Amino acid sequence: MPLTAISDRAVLDNIVGRVEAIKAVDEGLFEVSVGLSVATSGMEAGQLFNMLFGNTSLHPEVMLKDAVFPDELLAAFGGPRHGISGLRQRVGAGIRALTCSALKPQGSSARELAELARQLARGGLDFIKDDHGLADQVYSPFAERVPRIAEAVREARANDGGRTCYLPSLSGNLDQLRRQVELARAEGIDAVLIAPMVTGVSAFHTIVRENPDFAFMTHPSMAGAARIAPPLLLGKLFRLLGADATVFPNYGGRFGYSQDECRELAKAALARWSKFPATVPVPAGGMTLDRVAEMLEFYGLDVIVLVGGGLLSAGTRITQETAAFVDAVVRHQTA
Amino acid sequence: MPLTAISDRAVLDNIVGRVEAIKAVDEGLFEVSVGLSVATSGMEAGQLFNMLFGNTSLHPEVMLKDAVFPDELLAAFGGPRHGISGLRQRVGAGIRALTCSALKPQGSSARELAELARQLARGGLDFIKDDHGLADQVYSPFAERVPRIAEAVREARANDGGRTCYLPSLSGNLDQLRRQVELARAEGIDAVLIAPMVTGVSAFHTIVRENPDFAFMTHPSMAGAARIAPPLLLGKLFRLLGADATVFPNYGGRFGYSQDECRELAKAALARWSKFPATVPVPAGGMTLDRVAEMLEFYGLDVIVLVGGGLLSAGTRITQETAAFVDAVVRHQTA
Repeated sequence: MPLTAISDRAVLDNIVGRVEAIKAVDEGLFEVSVGLSVATSGMEAGQLFNMLFGNTSLHPEVMLKDAVFPDELLAAFGGPRHGISGLRQRVGAGIRALTCSALKPQGSSARELAELARQLARGGLDFIKDDHGLADQVYSPFAERVPRIAEAVREARANDGGRTCYLPSLSGNLDQLRRQVELARAEGIDAVLIAPMVTGVSAFHTIVRENPDFAFMTHPSMAGAARIAPPLLLGKLFRLLGADATVFPNYGGRFGYSQDECRELAKAALARWSKFPATVPVPAGGMTLDRVAEMLEFYGLDVIVLVGGGLLSAGTRITQETAAFVDAVVRHQTA
Repeated sequence: MPLTAISDRAVLDNIVGRVEAIKAVDEGLFEVSVGLSVATSGMEAGQLFNMLFGNTSLHPEVMLKDAVFPDELLAAFGGPRHGISGLRQRVGAGIRALTCSALKPQGSSARELAELARQLARGGLDFIKDDHGLADQVYSPFAERVPRIAEAVREARANDGGRTCYLPSLSGNLDQLRRQVELARAEGIDAVLIAPMVTGVSAFHTIVRENPDFAFMTHPSMAGAARIAPPLLLGKLFRLLGADATVFPNYGGRFGYSQDECRELAKAALARWSKFPATVPVPAGGMTLDRVAEMLEFYGLDVIVLVGGGLLSAGTRITQETAAFVDAVVRHQTA
């Protein structure tokens, strides 16, 4: 909008974005701070992203690096409800790092996935999540898969005094997300996986607000497409909308995030911020048992360590391998 | 998922992605064709994106260049319903290029936007759309803005025998999108603007399917530039989900799309594809009257030319300037 075409003084004073600082950080690279009007967000998640990076995402040479929000906006969006203490509570863990694995591959039947969940749960994992690729496909429909897996996990932990929390993966439009939450709740489930950049941030935020009893682990699928700095998007923005835990590709795995990006992401997720509980960092993506010690040194104990394929490759030894992973994480706390 | 961890033959044969070709196209740059199972999409828009580029979007050096779909999938998603002929019909135009402008700035009251719409409509525009930044903010709530603007546009064209079609911008979650469509329908409106990467593609596709009488113009906000090729995302994928017209940044404007990208995008939007009507290309982003002739030479007559700020800058001469724009486009057809 050409400024010369704006005749309304109030719009010029209160609505138009304002360049507040320009700092050269490298040859041809500038850090530019732009002040935006809170009112333009309409306090709605999609419109917030629209204002932060909508048209600017179309400029190939611009990255959205960080955002600072006033209290009014933080209160309106609400942040996480459970955070790390709520997640530890769900699995009866004290102050220690938590463990997680994933159910895959796609194409498996609900029965096969439930059997896999049983073997993983017997190894004593804190969390088992659906792979984010498990949606509502004909080979394992949500309504069949989730009750079977929930039952298998309950049975596996019935006699050892431990608790494993199963997180089904939500997908589809808002109607489908709501139905899936109700199906999950009927199985005694109170935590789910969701990929906000796949479902849309508006749908994610709506589901969070409507279900205060549920904890939400976010998945980064499609999050790389928009060139928003991962610490901002997966740490801060997902936290603002209500992520209790945030999955992201750990450095040195299958994906290209750097050590610095991972450190900054975890910092953004855990930092003191308004009255928000901390969002738990969930480094993942090709992690293996032999990296557990290093990861705990790097992230500390406020972390969920997610090993997926590394366990699934163990074949018939999957329960033992899982137990070894759990043991390595739990032992580390007293090291 | 390590392939060695998959024991199910049917999964290996039918579900696992398959590298079908690798072609070196430049120093260190390869074109890789990957075959994916249609079943993994669950025939749901979000999950389709999840499969096409979900985790791969996290690799900074990979771009999603193109996708080819089988008839089964095309039929399930459905494509546009109105396309260029439906849009021409709405405004009573023959085979000629169409004209469009946008209502802004944000922060204006509903009354001010309606007055602007009146002046633009008097100039004889085919389409007037809300700026994609107009959501449901306190300064011009959707429920107040849309009836006022619709009325102003109707009045402006009441006596000159012409038709101007007003497209309000939809935003928010699926509940809000549905309410907004109903509000629009009550005003006799049958075309809207929507930004699928802001609302989420699932919500966009749901609204399209639920409202076969409405035409949908898509906006590229949050669509990025560098990671999913614009011809694929804004041309092909938005068309698959039901876009009747697709706004994109024209080359040589405020944004960085190249001439080749724009040509490919328009080609993807207009190409023969299944039984889908053509999606109309809407080049935009800092366009001015003096580029009309060049744009029509470049895009041909199956196009909606969108001039926003270029008209709004005309101040009190806005109606005359609009009429000149309309005249330049309409005259071109007989040139």
